Amino acid sequence: MPFDSSYLTSHRFEPSLQTYDAKDVILYALGLGVGSRPTDPAHLQFVYEKGLRALPTMGVVLAHPGFWAGDPALGVDWARMLHGAQGLTLHRPIPVAGNVRGESRIADVIDRGESKGALLYYVRDVFDEVTGELVATVRQTLVCRGNGGPGAAGRKPPAPHAIPDRRPDVVTDVATMAQLALLYRLSGDLNPLHVDPDVAAKGGFEAPILHGLATFGIAGFALLEHACGFDPARFRSFDVRFTAPVFPGETIRTELWLEGDTVAVRARAVERDVFVLDNGRAEIVR
Amino acid sequence: MPFDSSYLTSHRFEPSLQTYDAKDVILYALGLGVGSRPTDPAHLQFVYEKGLRALPTMGVVLAHPGFWAGDPALGVDWARMLHGAQGLTLHRPIPVAGNVRGESRIADVIDRGESKGALLYYVRDVFDEVTGELVATVRQTLVCRGNGGPGAAGRKPPAPHAIPDRRPDVVTDVATMAQLALLYRLSGDLNPLHVDPDVAAKGGFEAPILHGLATFGIAGFALLEHACGFDPARFRSFDVRFTAPVFPGETIRTELWLEGDTVAVRARAVERDVFVLDNGRAEIVR
Repeated sequence: MPFDSSYLTSHRFEPSLQTYDAKDVILYALGLGVGSRPTDPAHLQFVYEKGLRALPTMGVVLAHPGFWAGDPALGVDWARMLHGAQGLTLHRPIPVAGNVRGESRIADVIDRGESKGALLYYVRDVFDEVTGELVATVRQTLVCRGNGGPGAAGRKPPAPHAIPDRRPDVVTDVATMAQLALLYRLSGDLNPLHVDPDVAAKGGFEAPILHGLATFGIAGFALLEHACGFDPARFRSFDVRFTAPVFPGETIRTELWLEGDTVAVRARAVERDVFVLDNGRAEIVR
Repeated sequence: MPFDSSYLTSHRFEPSLQTYDAKDVILYALGLGVGSRPTDPAHLQFVYEKGLRALPTMGVVLAHPGFWAGDPALGVDWARMLHGAQGLTLHRPIPVAGNVRGESRIADVIDRGESKGALLYYVRDVFDEVTGELVATVRQTLVCRGNGGPGAAGRKPPAPHAIPDRRPDVVTDVATMAQLALLYRLSGDLNPLHVDPDVAAKGGFEAPILHGLATFGIAGFALLEHACGFDPARFRSFDVRFTAPVFPGETIRTELWLEGDTVAVRARAVERDVFVLDNGRAEIVR
């Protein structure tokens, strides 16, 4: 069913509240495989409560409103929905413990017609409930394949960020562990697609797939290491398109093109030689 | 300083209370590396909330009273204390969520003299607060090297369980991940010895060591697989002596001798060819 755009963009979400602590911050980092160099201070600072820092990409799991797309009032054909793109802006470093409040909205809807479906642009601002400050803005593009309208496609979505036509400046591999999705899901996304072989099979996958946001976090950690010197305060934003799933156990090869204040980002699953993230763009503080 | 045995054995511990849920049960299992076969139902049942079962060895982390040996009233020279042995009896399967109460006591003290130190036998009964039933009994032998008395050693400790003089019936290897101690500690034992390189160095170790109870759990999982058909209800008890530390990243080779209702257990760190658990004995329901 086609969307009623103005209804969706005026939909009021309940604020989503979360209290979290150092254990959650550590668990999020371990869920990306961080800590694989357990005696390296660069890794330790994200997985040990002494001098702990939160990974910037943790913003995407904070104050999550849950499976809002399942709300029948919105009319999303969620069984045919895909997570098309993800973005995150950090307004300040994420506290290592605290209370956060998420304010969600559907910022835009672009109907690409019946064959391509509708694009739903979801945005969440995450506030520190103690200081009132805006900590992070989370952006998600959902490809609603069952919600395209019968008419010709109207507006075009913004052009994807270009990947430079040259070799990347940094290429870094992360061998994910077989149980990574089992670990990552403890940070809140309990969708059985990432753990249950039967659910994965129904979705057309030969095995449970890794969370797209885990791949996002792994590429984000590569950015943090190679473009930000491991300093979360230098990580401003990261936007990327999801192009294929990752299976836990595969090696994720992240490619970075360092271009001043911005970094172009792409990632592939090495064993299948398939791009899993593409058209990525990060903003950093040099 | 020598112990005052009768004072210690009459010491009254505060009951220790814990509320836990499926996430804790899953995190404990992941902290042993369980889930490395993520599509195998035998592993999944311990790491996925659908049909979840608690690993029997989780008993050792339930209703833990914290670092009680640090209580000055007890006079334990804890800086020179070693974790000598561990035991666990399961009276019924561990609930996958619930409220538990731990009742701790020092059951016995055996003074082995100034050179060998004193042996402190700690016991904790873990009760289900909802049903009132006894779930598990946890036994710990602490070697208090700084607390032996000046006189000749008195009583001898019980003889260790013998390891049969023949090849083991089962030999199974677990390659631990480099970050296993980081993950295991989220189940409650935050001793910095297992994460902080400086603290490990002060303790005389070249790197942070894995928790002895993680090694215990890994050997326990081998028992569960090869002697109990993955059925927690068949796992009755497991006692073992710690003989050397494991470093995260090493391979733990568990050897089992199946002898009817009992199983003899030993484990080594393969890369250093050092025994890490010895004189182990498990009771199982056939």
